[in-house]
Amino acid sequence: MRNPPALERLVESLRCLPGVGPKSALRMAYHLLQRDRNGASNLAQALDYALQTISHCNLCNNFSEQPVCPLCSSDKRDGSLLCVVEMPTDLLMLEQTQVFNGMYFVLMGRLSPLDGIGPRDIHLDRLLKRAQDGVVKEVIMATNYTVEGEATAHYVSELLKSRGLKVSRIARGLPMGGEIEHVDSGTLAQALMERRNIS
Amino acid sequence: MRNPPALERLVESLRCLPGVGPKSALRMAYHLLQRDRNGASNLAQALDYALQTISHCNLCNNFSEQPVCPLCSSDKRDGSLLCVVEMPTDLLMLEQTQVFNGMYFVLMGRLSPLDGIGPRDIHLDRLLKRAQDGVVKEVIMATNYTVEGEATAHYVSELLKSRGLKVSRIARGLPMGGEIEHVDSGTLAQALMERRNIS
Repeated sequence: MRNPPALERLVESLRCLPGVGPKSALRMAYHLLQRDRNGASNLAQALDYALQTISHCNLCNNFSEQPVCPLCSSDKRDGSLLCVVEMPTDLLMLEQTQVFNGMYFVLMGRLSPLDGIGPRDIHLDRLLKRAQDGVVKEVIMATNYTVEGEATAHYVSELLKSRGLKVSRIARGLPMGGEIEHVDSGTLAQALMERRNIS
Repeated sequence: MRNPPALERLVESLRCLPGVGPKSALRMAYHLLQRDRNGASNLAQALDYALQTISHCNLCNNFSEQPVCPLCSSDKRDGSLLCVVEMPTDLLMLEQTQVFNGMYFVLMGRLSPLDGIGPRDIHLDRLLKRAQDGVVKEVIMATNYTVEGEATAHYVSELLKSRGLKVSRIARGLPMGGEIEHVDSGTLAQALMERRNIS
């Protein structure tokens, strides 16, 4: 006695979602078939539509429906600054600050030898080409301050510096509203070492 | 600056999955578009196929590709025993024990007033009709020993008993290999009260 084949196939297919094991896949399939057939149908269509429509921007490598995304084709951005981020979400967060008016490059990941993610997987060949377009003056590394993000920033900056480009890294320190009593000692140590002169 | 519309639509559609909030939906969409386009395509097809193919068995209410599922149409099962379970998974677990040869009815849920799930949502009208087919002699309530499962068992058995049907409940007690030292006191109390005579 097993579930009907079409149900087994759906459960198997749901497992391509990150973080979804056999039990959650079964729960999802039951839920969709029992309580949300409209949602399931919308999801099938949205998947097809996204697969047809979405590719990567030729310049910044972000997800895009056009060969060059709206941000990269805007004439209001400063082409001399290139900010390198790990994921599209990071780009959106930086845009929300409204203090950066340059261009971006989205790695779509970070170096992670343990997960088998090397320089090719984060499109460094394309980044090098992009950074050497003659307009870019400074590359800002805005990868995460995690072990992998730091390693990525280090590796990428060495590559870029060896090609004569100026490279910087976003600052590290206490967060806004951060209290010394409650901040972790690693952050506090960095905030001390990277202190700024008050002019 | 936002994500491309097709991506936003995919993220929104993924949220119909139980337990998936905005952040996991975004992570899933990135993963599918970046690393598993085949998986996404398979998922879209499996969803469509399941929606077309899978309905409920007219007799046991389990998911089925036929109007009457293979189990209900088998002539090797004992029609005088009807076992009521909450979910298809419970049916599969009971089948794995290989000690039950009767029929099933799958409620596809349990009574849960707080979640707005009442008698209609667990198809009690169909269960009553099914149990009064003239062949069923005993209904075995195999809902979970949770608060909701217990309430469901109680409510359903009252309905069935008022129609002159014999109703039983699966036993409660120490699990196989269970040690008195480590079992919770509720289970132990029940095991004491529901003790069997050793013949």
